[in-house]
Amino acid sequence: MPRLQSKFCRMCGGSMAIIQPEGDKEWRHVCNSCGYIDYFNPRMVVGCVVEHEGKILLCKRAIEPCRGLWTIPAGFMEIGESSAAGAERETYEEAHARVQVLSQYAHWDIPVIGQAYILFRAKLASPFTFSSGPESLEVALFDPASIPFDQIAFSSISITLRHYLQDMASGQWHLHHGVIDKVPGAAPNDPASFQLKDHFSMPVTLSQQ
Amino acid sequence: MPRLQSKFCRMCGGSMAIIQPEGDKEWRHVCNSCGYIDYFNPRMVVGCVVEHEGKILLCKRAIEPCRGLWTIPAGFMEIGESSAAGAERETYEEAHARVQVLSQYAHWDIPVIGQAYILFRAKLASPFTFSSGPESLEVALFDPASIPFDQIAFSSISITLRHYLQDMASGQWHLHHGVIDKVPGAAPNDPASFQLKDHFSMPVTLSQQ
Repeated sequence: MPRLQSKFCRMCGGSMAIIQPEGDKEWRHVCNSCGYIDYFNPRMVVGCVVEHEGKILLCKRAIEPCRGLWTIPAGFMEIGESSAAGAERETYEEAHARVQVLSQYAHWDIPVIGQAYILFRAKLASPFTFSSGPESLEVALFDPASIPFDQIAFSSISITLRHYLQDMASGQWHLHHGVIDKVPGAAPNDPASFQLKDHFSMPVTLSQQ
Repeated sequence: MPRLQSKFCRMCGGSMAIIQPEGDKEWRHVCNSCGYIDYFNPRMVVGCVVEHEGKILLCKRAIEPCRGLWTIPAGFMEIGESSAAGAERETYEEAHARVQVLSQYAHWDIPVIGQAYILFRAKLASPFTFSSGPESLEVALFDPASIPFDQIAFSSISITLRHYLQDMASGQWHLHHGVIDKVPGAAPNDPASFQLKDHFSMPVTLSQQ
């Protein structure tokens, strides 16, 4: 049975219990008074690998978790926007960079934390400038050889950047889909705490470059 | 300002207000007593286009919305599973069919209803049988020419099946990514109420067939 994450009913303020509703295989948070079911679903994190003149844009995080470590611009998708629009929004918020999305690049599920990363290839767009947004200490373009892999914030971002550099070097782009299997409770950036499973790596041809 | 969807605080039972927290560009549900922010995020619907001997598996819905109309097996992704595993689970629940997932096929965002469809290509697996699950009135294999496009439950499924048949006929598979722009409040299956926008159609080569 999952732990109680919702103590009171959103609809009537009654107390909540964790039960298996009839016909449902899952445990749900159900209101003892009005029967409202408070579903918890996985959330999407959307972001961009931004390339400019052969370099990749990274942000040094100004907030926890992983303050001081580097990541690509990414964050939770909002209701009312598309995943690509959300990735562009996060890139502007975190790096003050305007970008053009070229294609989806990866879909990584992380079941243990209930997240899916939907990441895009993008290129820096006019006016080709960037600077730190409120959640970043620093924003910089990195040569592939200079990416600080020992200071990357999240397992999903390490995995993305490693595949991106391989694709970039070979000139054969892929659409990556896979599952990041993490040790529950592990630190977000512990390289020994995760592995990539069920990896589909599909060579793609892009019409819009 | 969005309408109030959460009247009471999940954490303390206090009353909720819709405000813009400092540093946030979005309106949020915030507790007047303890400050808890109740975020609403888009949800993922996961499913499979299941092919067997050149035919496609469809389910006639036994539940609303769109009871009596046809769809592919799909449903909300659960925390703790991957999108592909969720698609397999839904296929078993709705069609009692075991499948092998071949690759991701499409990602469709539907911003107006806060959903993203993550759909997979799959083939029927041993024991190659199927029957109606509790949410289906009927399950059947359709020849491409016999798919009942005037009786398909959801815009996302019509769009998926049309692209799938094109790819199947040409032998060139694609990874599709796009945005389904719906008229707010329109019926789920009104063909005049939606259009596909920002469609990236990436030719793919599959190594795992």
